[in-house]
Formats: sequence, structure tokens, C-alpha cells
Amino acid sequence: MYRPPAEPGMPIDEIDTPALILDLDAFEANLDHMASAAKAAGVRVRPHAKTHKSPVVAHLQMARGAVGQCVQKVAEAEILAWGGVPDILVSNEVVSPAKLARLAALARIARVALCADHALGVDAIEAAAQDAGVRLPVLVEIDVGAARCGLVPGPEVLALARRIASSRHLSFGGLQAYQGRAQHQRTLDERTASIASAAEMTGRMVEDLRTIGLDCPIVGGAGTGTFALEAATGVFNELQVGSYVFMDADYGRNHPAPPFRQSLFVLSTVMSTPNAEVAVVDAGLKALAVDSGLPLVWQREGVTYAGASDEHGKLTLAPGSSPLKLDERVMLVPGHCDPTVDRYDWYVGVRNGRVECLWPISARGAMN
Amino acid sequence: MYRPPAEPGMPIDEIDTPALILDLDAFEANLDHMASAAKAAGVRVRPHAKTHKSPVVAHLQMARGAVGQCVQKVAEAEILAWGGVPDILVSNEVVSPAKLARLAALARIARVALCADHALGVDAIEAAAQDAGVRLPVLVEIDVGAARCGLVPGPEVLALARRIASSRHLSFGGLQAYQGRAQHQRTLDERTASIASAAEMTGRMVEDLRTIGLDCPIVGGAGTGTFALEAATGVFNELQVGSYVFMDADYGRNHPAPPFRQSLFVLSTVMSTPNAEVAVVDAGLKALAVDSGLPLVWQREGVTYAGASDEHGKLTLAPGSSPLKLDERVMLVPGHCDPTVDRYDWYVGVRNGRVECLWPISARGAMN
Repeated sequence: MYRPPAEPGMPIDEIDTPALILDLDAFEANLDHMASAAKAAGVRVRPHAKTHKSPVVAHLQMARGAVGQCVQKVAEAEILAWGGVPDILVSNEVVSPAKLARLAALARIARVALCADHALGVDAIEAAAQDAGVRLPVLVEIDVGAARCGLVPGPEVLALARRIASSRHLSFGGLQAYQGRAQHQRTLDERTASIASAAEMTGRMVEDLRTIGLDCPIVGGAGTGTFALEAATGVFNELQVGSYVFMDADYGRNHPAPPFRQSLFVLSTVMSTPNAEVAVVDAGLKALAVDSGLPLVWQREGVTYAGASDEHGKLTLAPGSSPLKLDERVMLVPGHCDPTVDRYDWYVGVRNGRVECLWPISARGAMN
Repeated sequence: MYRPPAEPGMPIDEIDTPALILDLDAFEANLDHMASAAKAAGVRVRPHAKTHKSPVVAHLQMARGAVGQCVQKVAEAEILAWGGVPDILVSNEVVSPAKLARLAALARIARVALCADHALGVDAIEAAAQDAGVRLPVLVEIDVGAARCGLVPGPEVLALARRIASSRHLSFGGLQAYQGRAQHQRTLDERTASIASAAEMTGRMVEDLRTIGLDCPIVGGAGTGTFALEAATGVFNELQVGSYVFMDADYGRNHPAPPFRQSLFVLSTVMSTPNAEVAVVDAGLKALAVDSGLPLVWQREGVTYAGASDEHGKLTLAPGSSPLKLDERVMLVPGHCDPTVDRYDWYVGVRNGRVECLWPISARGAMN
């Protein structure tokens, strides 16, 4: 973990750069908005810690009613459980015996559930749970259109659920039904159609499972781009939203954009001004994920982040825009929040122009 | 820093994934090849630590004759100096007083040089050197075609060099002339033309500086894609090569590819096999930089890394290729080595199918 780039009380311009900035007013507004929306819709929220990677953020979400956290990785589950999060769903398959042993060990200090999409996976989880003397809830992941992991809805799902339910150290935890592809479909019509189809498949599976005597404690899915749609279906009972706490440039390109404020920024510094049309900042592709597009420049008319190399970002200035000075700070909106957060050790929380807090990104790099 | 994914002696299949693997035979062959090539050409090597971010690798390079290291960031300079590297060039502009104070402080334990491309930058460096009571060599960065930082070769370069030489706590360190754009030009003709032009501009500046009484202790540039060209010009006296130690898929697309072996891999695990044509591994875009293209699958005929999401990699299997099994290991060649290394805390060094060593990636995330 690298040294923090700021101290509480410091004005923003004194923060060492690149730094990951959290606008606390916007962040808290986002937490509140999701909590109210879910309450109004009568569904639970189990936010995804793959976005924030921080027990601090997890506890703030749970203080507003979230029932626990989702993670994608065993290492993330460990860091949350060690940080006092009592209820964790690994919304992902875990198949390696060594990882399953770690997860089963965690079940002594937190409720830990995970997903499976293969009989061999279920058997491996059962073996690990037996070795550790714990009981693990296992959800069946179904493919509702994301075309990644998960079983195609149908008889195989019933068979796998039965296998889980009849495993001595497992309980059937429900269905994992995340439509990842729908999150960044640009129009509401596309997203509505995708989630309608996902909900129809999921709902039918819930019914089919009921007919063989298996209830679904969790029917989980949804993301920041579609949560209102899943919440309204009556099929999903848990929303696994992640990005809503921060937002990013790519979610901003949805129509309409999700009802959240941009709270996450990368603060950069102008380090070279080679000519009147160009300024170079100290945040390149090691500081900002570019997989979903380049970052946006925040509230600087006519200035565009035009290219990233490893440690440099090239800004272009439209004719007539006010020039950037050497050592000036520039705020950037990350193209994609989750992997950008994963580049930093610290959130620098700011309010009213000053640093209010530093929170460690404890699960940064926790990929194992 | 996250727990190491392996222990010395372990067979490769027991390494926890995703893990960053270093094939030690290939890596050492790369170190040796560069050392001989530079010796034969009569130029110094000052490898770039922005690639490897490790004092361990730096010392192995210096044991083979490298004169020191390049870095892009003050934090990288700190970690190398604290790790015993005695001669460090920040091949980049540093303009913020707080960063310059850190760099000047380092000059008590290592030789530390840096670059400037603006009079205000030179004045800020002079102020920091004066405050710390040290003397810092400063190179002028010139733009030889990369169109990023640096002055256009010409009278401004002479003026800035004079300003450095006449600053009481600075010495003129020479020219920084890196043609970054040429590194990944695909044909030898393109690269040859780019470096010929860069060398012509640089050589003329060296001459012009000599006429005003300023010698260039360092004339630095070159990268893994073009180092043989710069080495042959007689203009450059230091090669700032980085990627040659590891190589990556993007350098592999050059014609001809640089004369080095692929030594860097990401080891991943199959976590889902949804159908006969698809397998999903546990290494996605948090585990692998995708800015220069997707990773390649190593030595698995017919298997392609077709898509990355945050924590998942989707492999497609051509008809007739042998199926991938759940929990099977798959080696991936990163698309771009530098930012991929920056995702990991540990190199897992392997030889003859076993883990031989673990080296910390000490400057991982050292962006400040």
C-alpha cells in the first residue's frame, strides 16, 4: 500500500496526484437514492463490492439498509469479512480446492454464499464445506443473456439445484441471474427488452424450482444501468448494484443516464504545456481504466482528454478555451469506475473544497 | 500488498490465480541479449523501471552492465533508491514543489536526474535543489516525433539548457529524446524512418549545444521496438529500454518482432465451461491491461481469448480443439506488459515447471 496522497484538512490543490477523489456529498446522495428506491420497490439491496473494494463503503451501504455485500473473488470476500461485513455473496463460480478452503474458513466469521454452474463445482464446494465443518449456501448461476458463466435456464438448472440441496454441507441459496450486457445498452427500450427477457427466464425457473420443492432465498441480479427494471419485475428480490455509488463516463452515455451523481474523480496535474493546443497531465492508462473509453475532463470547457499513454494523459484545448498552466490541477471523470478504483490504495474524500477523510481501498488488487 | 500466490518449490498448477508469472530462463536470456547488443554497439543501457517496477530486476540489469535506471514517477524513484539503485533518471517532467522536494531529498542517497521542458519547471527544480542543499542534473526533453511532452528542437532548447547550466544548484544533464510512437510501428521501414528523423534532430541539437559550450552527458531515448536503430546512430549514448525483459502481445505484432523471448505471463484458471465452444477464466480486465489489445492464449491450439469483463476472460474454442476442463490452468500473454505488471504485487518466478522465487513488485501503484 502506497503512502496516502493527502491528509484531512488539506485544500484540494495540495493533494498529491494522481489521486482518486470521492466527492462525499455526491457519494452520500447516491447511497441515499438507491436505499430509497429499493425500499419503495420492496426489494433488498446487496451492493457489489467489486466496485468499491472497501469495508468502509460496505458499512455505509449497510447502515442504509443493504443486507450485505456481493463480491467476485475469494480475496475480496476475505477482506470484507475481516473488515466486519457479516453477509457476503460471491456472485461468481469458485472451483479450485485451495480457494474453496479459504472461503469455507471464512464461513466461521461471516455468512458466506457462492455460485455454481457445474456439478463438479458443487462437489468441490461440498468437499471444502465438509473439510471445514461448515454449511454453505450455493446459488445456481443462470445465463439470462450475458453469455458468460451460468447454465441455460432449463432442466439442468433443476438438476444442479437438487444436487446442491441434497449435498450434506450445502443449502440451495437461490438463483444468480445477472444480465451484464444490458447495463450499458444505450437506450431504455433495449434495456427494458433485455431485462424483461431475463426476468421471464428467471421467473419461470423460480416457479419450476418451487414445483420440485425448492424455494429461492435469493433471486439476485441487476446493476446500476437497469436496477429499476429488475426491481419492478417482482421476480428479483436482491439488487447487486455496484457502480451507482460512483458513476463513470460510460454510464453517463446511457439514455437516460442512471439517476446518480458523479462522485468519483481522478485528480491530475498539468506537467507539460508543449503548445497552446496541448497540455499533458500526469494521469495515463496506469491511473485510469480506458477499456470503456477515455476519461472526461470535468468542468473545463473546450478541454478534451484525447489520448493516454502509460503515465501521461494528453489534453487538447479547443480554440478560445482558457489555457492550462503548469502544475495546475485537472479533475477527470474515469471512463470505467471499477477498474479505475483498483489502481489506487486510497480514497481521498472531499467536501467543500477540502479533504475530509482518507479511506483505504483494502481489497485493491485482491484478485485471487 | 496482497498475499503471495505461491511459495518456492510449488509446481505451477498449484499457484493461486490470477498470478503474474516470470519464465526465468526467458527473462535471463532477454537480460543477456540486451547487455551484449548494447556492448557491441558501444552504448550504455539505462533500462526503464516503469516496466518492471522492481529493485530486484533493476539490480539484475545493473549486474549485467546497465548504468542505472529510468523511471517516470517520483514514487518509482523513491522505491528504487530505497532499494539500493544508485543512479536514477526521471525521464519525465516533474513540476510540483512537493514532488520536487521529495526528489531532492532522494539525491542524498542516489544520483537523481530529471527532465524539464519549460523555464518555470527549471525554476521550480532549482528552488527545490536549493532548499535541500543538493545539486540536480536536468535534461531538456525534446519532441522528436512522439508529440507528447518536450520542446520542439530549436533555439528554445538552447535557451532552456543555458538556463539550467546557469542555475546554481543544477547541472545540464543532456537531452531526453524518446520517440515513443515509433516503438509499435509495425514495419521496419516505418521504424527506421522515424528513428532516422529523431536522430537527425537530436544530433543537430547536440551540435548546437556544443557550439554554445554545453556538452550532453546523456543523450537518451530508444525503446524495445527500436533500440538497435538508436544504438547504431552514434547520436544516442543511453538506451532506455523497458519491455525487452518481458515482451508482450503487442510487441509481438511488430515485423520483425524484437529479438526477445516472451517471459511474462498471467496464469489463469478455468472457472466455468458453459458449452463446448466457450470456457471462462478468472482473469479479466482487472488482471490484464487491454489498452493494446486482448491477451493471447499461450500454446493452446484453437483457443482464443475473445473478451474481457472486469473479473472474467471469455475463451472461445475452435471446432476440434481439445476441451478445457474446470479448474484447469491457462497461461496468457498480456497484450501490454507495463500496465499489466502494475496490477500485481508479486512476480512468481518459474523454472522447470516449479516456482523458484517470489519477487515483490515494490513500485506497483507508485504513480505519484
